[in-house]
Amino acid sequence: MAVQKPSIPKGTRDFGPVEMAGRNYIFDTVRSVFRKYGYAPIETPSMENLSTLLGKYGEEGDKLLFKILNSGDAFSKVDWNRAKTDEGINSNNLALQVCEKGLRYDLTVPFARFVVQHRNELTFPFKRYQIQPVWRADRPQKGRYREFYQCDVDVIGSRSQLYELELVQIVDDVFAALGVRIVLKINNRKVLSGLAEVSGHPDKLIDITVAIDKIDKIGLEAVKAELLERGLTEQAIQIIEPVLTLQGSNSEKIAAMRPILANSEVGMRGLDELEELFGFIAAASFKQEVEIDLSLARGLNYYTGAIFEVKAKDFQIGSICGGGRYDDLTGIFGLPDTSGVGISFGADRIYDVLSGLNLFPESTACSSDVLFANMDSQGVQYCLPIMTALRQAGCSVELYPDASKLRKQFEYAEKKGIRYLVIAGETEAQQQIINVKDLITGTQEVFQHNDLEALARKISTKS
Amino acid sequence: MAVQKPSIPKGTRDFGPVEMAGRNYIFDTVRSVFRKYGYAPIETPSMENLSTLLGKYGEEGDKLLFKILNSGDAFSKVDWNRAKTDEGINSNNLALQVCEKGLRYDLTVPFARFVVQHRNELTFPFKRYQIQPVWRADRPQKGRYREFYQCDVDVIGSRSQLYELELVQIVDDVFAALGVRIVLKINNRKVLSGLAEVSGHPDKLIDITVAIDKIDKIGLEAVKAELLERGLTEQAIQIIEPVLTLQGSNSEKIAAMRPILANSEVGMRGLDELEELFGFIAAASFKQEVEIDLSLARGLNYYTGAIFEVKAKDFQIGSICGGGRYDDLTGIFGLPDTSGVGISFGADRIYDVLSGLNLFPESTACSSDVLFANMDSQGVQYCLPIMTALRQAGCSVELYPDASKLRKQFEYAEKKGIRYLVIAGETEAQQQIINVKDLITGTQEVFQHNDLEALARKISTKS
Repeated sequence: MAVQKPSIPKGTRDFGPVEMAGRNYIFDTVRSVFRKYGYAPIETPSMENLSTLLGKYGEEGDKLLFKILNSGDAFSKVDWNRAKTDEGINSNNLALQVCEKGLRYDLTVPFARFVVQHRNELTFPFKRYQIQPVWRADRPQKGRYREFYQCDVDVIGSRSQLYELELVQIVDDVFAALGVRIVLKINNRKVLSGLAEVSGHPDKLIDITVAIDKIDKIGLEAVKAELLERGLTEQAIQIIEPVLTLQGSNSEKIAAMRPILANSEVGMRGLDELEELFGFIAAASFKQEVEIDLSLARGLNYYTGAIFEVKAKDFQIGSICGGGRYDDLTGIFGLPDTSGVGISFGADRIYDVLSGLNLFPESTACSSDVLFANMDSQGVQYCLPIMTALRQAGCSVELYPDASKLRKQFEYAEKKGIRYLVIAGETEAQQQIINVKDLITGTQEVFQHNDLEALARKISTKS
Repeated sequence: MAVQKPSIPKGTRDFGPVEMAGRNYIFDTVRSVFRKYGYAPIETPSMENLSTLLGKYGEEGDKLLFKILNSGDAFSKVDWNRAKTDEGINSNNLALQVCEKGLRYDLTVPFARFVVQHRNELTFPFKRYQIQPVWRADRPQKGRYREFYQCDVDVIGSRSQLYELELVQIVDDVFAALGVRIVLKINNRKVLSGLAEVSGHPDKLIDITVAIDKIDKIGLEAVKAELLERGLTEQAIQIIEPVLTLQGSNSEKIAAMRPILANSEVGMRGLDELEELFGFIAAASFKQEVEIDLSLARGLNYYTGAIFEVKAKDFQIGSICGGGRYDDLTGIFGLPDTSGVGISFGADRIYDVLSGLNLFPESTACSSDVLFANMDSQGVQYCLPIMTALRQAGCSVELYPDASKLRKQFEYAEKKGIRYLVIAGETEAQQQIINVKDLITGTQEVFQHNDLEALARKISTKS
């Protein structure tokens, strides 16, 4: 066979030991926080039936689904008449005739499908977290990949805003544990609906939210211009404008909104919800900033109540975590009136933040504690039980595979970031001792064969 | 939209909290052993270029690859003349015109691709482990899935059999940690090659190994019949037969093989390798049975030296772990003469063994330690900081979302296997106490608000 130049599909990545260590640090941190709040893990298949996925992410999302060719003789049952148009083959029609499955696009739709499919086995409110990759056939660019991990935490089957509080606490705990200073912004979709109502454009909720969501990026004047462009009247914009420039504490903002939304029932309910949530937040103690941001909209149309977004204070990268409440995610699968709330942590962006701010702890590097040099076969025989004892004591231990020049063995340890080198050949075996060299300080220490506990204590980075 | 009955593709599975807890227990155990031997994690993309995968698993394997339809207008560039035959459309040709990517079939080929692609960043011998799902378009049946996890551990870039020893130690440690009694069987591909040589059928290595591999299942006479059927002479079978019925210790088996393979250089090298490896094994201390099995072949043709297979002693399920040495896995990607050795743990089968033998520890169930009942809003306000303190002390804590009837809140705790229920409403808030009910014993205990450490000690299952 001809030699192939190895490569991977564009938009995908290999993760070496260093990236893995950083990523596992993030996953372990979020996981341990999720568990403290009683969330349990689930996993769903990488492939879902296309019927489960299609139509859930808008027209644009459907195009971004990776479809999997049916196995076996995929094209034998094609109805070519259906697949043909005057211009030639209709790719979309043909694709749907030969592909029944697709790779999951997010963790939310599979979660909704899971909840409905297993509703009789689950205890509600059902609290789950899910850390798995998702795939999108997006154009790859810096920070945007075709395969990336999502870490979602959701609870479904309750309307209680104590769960909104719980998610806010989780966000607070996770980023405190990671050492990242954040601002957590909160809004409520009902407030936005109310705003559309009182502006006289209840049908233009999407236009309004899309425009005002950009205020941080483009500024007030540009947002006003865009609202005009999207067909809002000057009068409507005058009603919306004060909302975009609200100042003050969270309760002051809510108070200021009440007269504006007084004529909208849904708007007032949104303000009540915000007030209740911030009441809970005041009763719990928070390590980080939590604030109302009435311009916060987020793209996803299934949110019906609280909306969350998290930004890092010391690093420019956009939102690193977000979510909200949805009242009818499971309806399409046959389970109506089941409200839930959830958030998703963006592992890739959080990785970039930790990396950019140098916040990864040193101990996440997963190099071994000690390398046993390979001096001679008597030395190896002597060292094998010692290595076993050290591993039992929790150390990570390697043996160099050949009795190569010591220089080469040193280099291996150095390149791999292994701090300690044990040198024990035939002579040391006879004397029942072990020489331990510290490659950072350059010092050397002798241990007795029967004093392995002291050796384990010295070399272990984990304890 | 019409309501859809939720389902998942055949051969795939959802994993709920209970299955996840069991699986994570397995993954955590193997991971912690891998790390003690200095293996570092990597991950590769779920999709590989089809050119990386095709031709690596035989013709049958190629058919079992899941192909991913190119995104965008996949069929617009098809050369229909190439895809057409007299009988109609050639599915295979058309599939390769519209699919450039496939889902990985195992972790070995992506590992070889990874090593070659990143050779300049890696330190050799490179020791990695990889725990990721793989996909095969196999006909689903009991115990065979289209998506399943593999846990592979390999070292590449050294011929030293100290690594064979290390893998044997890893197997020993993993199954000791899991509490599974095993037999680890070892053979050497060179011994099998030697056997084919001395039997006068050097070209029939595959036929011989496929046949003798079945001896445990079909017995000696049936193996002999199959060898005859596969074109071996009676004389050849007479030479092979004693090998299949060898008894005695490992060193006795090696000694008994020497005269049989005396005329085969490769065979004698195989015996030397086995002897060296069992010398290492004797110098290390083992918890479980390790034995030579000269009928062990395993299907994979890329093995060139040691071959490993692990079976559970107390549970019938076939091999739960296997692997071997390969001398030229990376050659196809342009890195020749790079020997490696590795093993793969079958997570699904190990799960079935642990489950069948009731070996999952109780603590793997990831239910919360305590549920705070929701008595009234004053109670919630009072409890929130207490819950925070308990979480900081490492406990997993839930709050019931509504002030429902206590009966309903009890049921939630019981269904979720939460042992302790805190009952603290307005009255307890005034008295600064907390009532803790043990749902197993039915007893109730009162804690002072300022004695949360004692409470944390009582309810925590983790400490």
